[in-house]
Amino acid sequence: MAGQPLPPINGYFFEDLEIGQRFASRRVTVTEDAIIRFALEWDPHAFHIDREEANESMFGGLIGSGLQTLLLTSRMLYDSGLFQGTALAGLGVGELRFLKPLLPGDTIGAVTEIVDKSVSRNPTRGKVRIRIQTLNQRGDLILSHTREMLLARRS
Amino acid sequence: MAGQPLPPINGYFFEDLEIGQRFASRRVTVTEDAIIRFALEWDPHAFHIDREEANESMFGGLIGSGLQTLLLTSRMLYDSGLFQGTALAGLGVGELRFLKPLLPGDTIGAVTEIVDKSVSRNPTRGKVRIRIQTLNQRGDLILSHTREMLLARRS
Repeated sequence: MAGQPLPPINGYFFEDLEIGQRFASRRVTVTEDAIIRFALEWDPHAFHIDREEANESMFGGLIGSGLQTLLLTSRMLYDSGLFQGTALAGLGVGELRFLKPLLPGDTIGAVTEIVDKSVSRNPTRGKVRIRIQTLNQRGDLILSHTREMLLARRS
Repeated sequence: MAGQPLPPINGYFFEDLEIGQRFASRRVTVTEDAIIRFALEWDPHAFHIDREEANESMFGGLIGSGLQTLLLTSRMLYDSGLFQGTALAGLGVGELRFLKPLLPGDTIGAVTEIVDKSVSRNPTRGKVRIRIQTLNQRGDLILSHTREMLLARRS
């Protein structure tokens, strides 16, 4: 966790990554309209789509679906180029916590840390575990989760 | 886990649920076009959007993003009505495994099981943990995960 996140480059292979390395994504701003459109398609609870009903919710106003935070984080991670062309498959997700709501107008970004890596029996692949932390413009951690994935090896 | 999943009804409150209860969702069929459109927006790895490149991947053909399986599962769960109007907030996701790929033309459905529940200090809420298993038309388990959520109490 020491030091600043590294600038992203395209397509790290398994051998290129070291445990503890961190990478920052670009950031994205989320409008109320984008929150409502996403929720209408995927997660249409009242507090994601209806301003008035949302005012009566435990959040006191409209909030984005946690799934939207997750998907925006995925897309930011993709766009960072970190695993473009080298990711072979996603294996799973762990320890996912929705820590704070996504609010209309928020600008969010993600920091990805390499937390574990291990070679596979298949010499063309390796397994990597990453922790992804999604933060808003106030520096609040709003989503934390880990992912396990197969990555191509150079050799 | 004994017996058949129960038919869904709308809006279970915390008190209505018992550990071990299971609920079946409706099913949904996923076209190749839907797979490509989803991936272009959220997870544009070549093996989700490009038929020719996908033929060279470890899956030997185009597959849907695991995130799409997750979001379709969420939407099927929402549509089952189980927590409509009673879900207060999602807390987290655990033990998520992408076990088999989502393939063009697949028809998938989900079974939700109540695995744990506990009262909150706030008497209007309770915490519920559910396990959701997503299966394809061949009966293969393709996605398994748990969710923890806050649910309204009647009292």
